[in-house]
Amino acid sequence: MTLIVAFDRSSSKDGKEVIGTISKICNMVSGVKLGIPLFAKHGATIAREVREVCRNNMIIADLKLADIGDIMISTAEVLLPHVDAFIAHSFIGREGALDDLKSYLDSRGSKLILVASMSHKGSTEVYDKEIDSIASVIKGINPWGIVAPATRPEVIGRLRESLGKEIKILSPGVGVQGAKPGVALCNGADFEIVGRYITNSSNPVETTKLIIYEQKRRLDKCRR
Amino acid sequence: MTLIVAFDRSSSKDGKEVIGTISKICNMVSGVKLGIPLFAKHGATIAREVREVCRNNMIIADLKLADIGDIMISTAEVLLPHVDAFIAHSFIGREGALDDLKSYLDSRGSKLILVASMSHKGSTEVYDKEIDSIASVIKGINPWGIVAPATRPEVIGRLRESLGKEIKILSPGVGVQGAKPGVALCNGADFEIVGRYITNSSNPVETTKLIIYEQKRRLDKCRR
Repeated sequence: MTLIVAFDRSSSKDGKEVIGTISKICNMVSGVKLGIPLFAKHGATIAREVREVCRNNMIIADLKLADIGDIMISTAEVLLPHVDAFIAHSFIGREGALDDLKSYLDSRGSKLILVASMSHKGSTEVYDKEIDSIASVIKGINPWGIVAPATRPEVIGRLRESLGKEIKILSPGVGVQGAKPGVALCNGADFEIVGRYITNSSNPVETTKLIIYEQKRRLDKCRR
Repeated sequence: MTLIVAFDRSSSKDGKEVIGTISKICNMVSGVKLGIPLFAKHGATIAREVREVCRNNMIIADLKLADIGDIMISTAEVLLPHVDAFIAHSFIGREGALDDLKSYLDSRGSKLILVASMSHKGSTEVYDKEIDSIASVIKGINPWGIVAPATRPEVIGRLRESLGKEIKILSPGVGVQGAKPGVALCNGADFEIVGRYITNSSNPVETTKLIIYEQKRRLDKCRR
């Protein structure tokens, strides 16, 4: 399976409608990624409840951690019982930040995923200018996976080449942000991340099926 | 007043001990900064309770936002009723990110504070190499304030010179991270941020008084 569904917001006080939707699709996907607005509203509760309905999925806390080591570790400590992986930014560097977080997560058997580049246009203003320094931070940390944008598949190709085959590449930007399902996979990604296209759909289960079908169709083509 | 107290973690299930400590010191300080681990654990509840005990303080949500505009706006939306300002990272750039967040916060009468450089050593690995691009993002966004490290006061001086007198400079890194109270203020900062030195103290009220005294003593010296 190559699809991760991103849930970023809830419309109810307790987020129960999010849990309802997740429970219907988690057997169809690899993982569930939970965004900052959900944590800002519900705290650890939302992750605990997602864990209860999706016992066999990878659950990713996407807080885009970008703080000093001490703060990132305290954040991970709170969510470790409920999630399998944490997303942090490469941009903050290793010493006193990612080195500390990586050691901590390793010691707890949890995964680190580092953002290498982002899906919005502003990523080229600063982030992408430092792609070589970022690649060097990633090589030094050796995380389980990285995040690279489906909206700019050439970046995925360059990162795959520079970082080797072991590292997992997760690609957001599929759907509402414009990338077609399967394009990032054809360019070297391991997972595509889809958020609003599924969560805003009137029938999230059917939309998820459709995306999986589209991924396979494109993959079959590009692998020929 | 030139002191902002940072609260980053709680030891109890409901965070009541944090609220207890904050209620004793908020009349002595300019603002209260709440860190990611608190939101990851308690969600918006913690900010609402801090607002109730500190009605006249600036309350800052320090989620170190570093996501696409859509996600940052949804995060701000959740916390707007309880906080006055949001901290985001400059390195994510403007288009599709900080431009969107700034317009949204302006329309809601809320403040944006951008990280210009960080207090840990790893900040020099990528972040500080792009100090010119970062300064250009900051000038383009024109936020209420920026964050620059008390641990490297020369960076504060350079940013003050490059960005002018209007912008507020907030400096973390005082206390446990090594900077002495008042040093950042003497180098052009408007506020110093102190976290663990106060929150881990056996008597947070007395420690706060001591820091305020030390700030004044050093400021008197450097202004002579």
